[in-house]
Amino acid sequence: MDSLLLYEKDAIHKCNDWISKKSYSSIHVLCDENTYLHCYKIFQSWDLCENPTVFVISQGEKSKSLHFVEEFCKHCVENNIDRRSLCIALGGGVVCDILGFSASILLRGIDTLYIPTSLMAMSDAAIGGKTGVNFSAGKNQLGTFHFPKLILFHYDFLITLDVRNLRNGFVEMIKHSLLKGEGDFKTISSIVPDRVDELFIKQIKTSILFKNSIVLRDKLDTGERNALNLGHTLGHAIESYLLDNSEDILHGEAIAWGLIYELQLSGILFHKQIDYFQKAIQYLEQFKYKTSFSDTAKQKIVQRLIKDKKKKSGDIHFSLLKEYGLCEIHVKVEMDYILKFLLEQK
Amino acid sequence: MDSLLLYEKDAIHKCNDWISKKSYSSIHVLCDENTYLHCYKIFQSWDLCENPTVFVISQGEKSKSLHFVEEFCKHCVENNIDRRSLCIALGGGVVCDILGFSASILLRGIDTLYIPTSLMAMSDAAIGGKTGVNFSAGKNQLGTFHFPKLILFHYDFLITLDVRNLRNGFVEMIKHSLLKGEGDFKTISSIVPDRVDELFIKQIKTSILFKNSIVLRDKLDTGERNALNLGHTLGHAIESYLLDNSEDILHGEAIAWGLIYELQLSGILFHKQIDYFQKAIQYLEQFKYKTSFSDTAKQKIVQRLIKDKKKKSGDIHFSLLKEYGLCEIHVKVEMDYILKFLLEQK
Repeated sequence: MDSLLLYEKDAIHKCNDWISKKSYSSIHVLCDENTYLHCYKIFQSWDLCENPTVFVISQGEKSKSLHFVEEFCKHCVENNIDRRSLCIALGGGVVCDILGFSASILLRGIDTLYIPTSLMAMSDAAIGGKTGVNFSAGKNQLGTFHFPKLILFHYDFLITLDVRNLRNGFVEMIKHSLLKGEGDFKTISSIVPDRVDELFIKQIKTSILFKNSIVLRDKLDTGERNALNLGHTLGHAIESYLLDNSEDILHGEAIAWGLIYELQLSGILFHKQIDYFQKAIQYLEQFKYKTSFSDTAKQKIVQRLIKDKKKKSGDIHFSLLKEYGLCEIHVKVEMDYILKFLLEQK
Repeated sequence: MDSLLLYEKDAIHKCNDWISKKSYSSIHVLCDENTYLHCYKIFQSWDLCENPTVFVISQGEKSKSLHFVEEFCKHCVENNIDRRSLCIALGGGVVCDILGFSASILLRGIDTLYIPTSLMAMSDAAIGGKTGVNFSAGKNQLGTFHFPKLILFHYDFLITLDVRNLRNGFVEMIKHSLLKGEGDFKTISSIVPDRVDELFIKQIKTSILFKNSIVLRDKLDTGERNALNLGHTLGHAIESYLLDNSEDILHGEAIAWGLIYELQLSGILFHKQIDYFQKAIQYLEQFKYKTSFSDTAKQKIVQRLIKDKKKKSGDIHFSLLKEYGLCEIHVKVEMDYILKFLLEQK
């Protein structure tokens, strides 16, 4: 079930060896329009495999549907996929999610290899074996656990990303640093998040290894792995609310809001000094989607929370920080309290 | 990953206890038109759960499609399924397959309980955690391994089956007896396959425990479990060929043909005395779909084999009997040899 992670300079070379040894009967690559245009030629130049088939989907979250899973599966079946075939994801989180889900249901499970091309996918989405598509108005309602056999990290792909997309992925790296400890948060906040230099890449590796260590201890997300939801309970509600209002928000920009709110909440519930999480909160301000919320908006965000968690009333479970590097999962907070809390925030 | 099997007289009582202890948040039952009509009231009378939702699909193999998986998943999501919900299959192999597949992809995996109502499902299909639907002209091309938490065997449901459907399921029980040993084959061949009496039920239990013991030793079908394919390589090809010709054939009736041919083949390849498998072959004659195959038909069956196995030429792998109770898996047979062999058979 474990994934082999190749994240050092010799990654492509090692990946080449790994694939040769496996002698796969056929290889099928999934890209989106962007990665097909910008990354596929580079992928070909590595000579990992002969004559793979390629399937290209439209870019963006709207592709994360059962329809595209079905289309990709059809493509694979028509191209004689069998149990000794390999499926490769060359793209961001959406491409990894669709490829992983498809491969998990093709012939009861086909090997996969992920090559994440966005910072969000490298530092977070590609790691941990979760696959899924949006369904019936819900996020990731359909999906499986299906761990890629190998994840190949190629940092040069990040050069093609604009600053906004870099910052988008950087937010999950900040979350990891908060879960790791105060020293780690200090380290990450000293990095320029707009430029992929050596320190930046070092920090990505730290993020990869940190997330992977949590996943290895709780693969099916029944305990400790819940800590990775820090910032995501309110973050998802904010993301859904803004997307419903046709705002052009990225996941990380919503999670920055979620982290800010949930650190404030952590401070209150765990009786910390008023300035204990302030450095982190202030630092996160630059990553959030540039808006503030009216009281009406805050009420709608809480309604969204109720809908997401399928609760009529009662408590919401949060993953909150007791201190830097120490997360408490399943912290129950009453719905009324959350609204009151949000109305008190700026 | 193991399934709890309840197959004794106190099964319903034990199942009741089991469900109470789990305190599921919601329960969703899948039936087909037949089982909704004939079995659902009986299920309700057991009082296993309060207010389950029910979803009914059309009867038969044509329902085994991604479309019905999607419909059932939609039903569950609209009825507020969450990770602590339970899905129940009340039906034959098709209902178990669709329910199991749906539950395996809903929220990355929901608990399931199977209540098989046909002999085919009781003695074979419901056991072993394989789920799947037909897709893009292939059998079970999409599917997962997802073991039901519990399988409840209620033999009274068999009373509603006609003789043809009883005999259909009985073929898999014969296959199990051949894999178990000569003594077991003698026992099963002394049973009247048209009447569910005490001996018959005892034999079902033997079949359940035998299949389950193999599954437990090779859950993901990478080795020993391949033995259960005895009769299925040629059987599937015959089934597909006849279905393509709009013949009204049942799975077991095709597998009876498959077993007859593959026992003949076993005798030849393992140099057995001419009469070694004759008793079994003669006994199986009464279960096969009543037809014989012309030379043209045999050629088409071999073509079907090539298509099923996605081979252009070369070898086909069989699971064959070395002797009663001893199966050899991955026996390579050349395609040309299979055609020659079939043409020599009546």
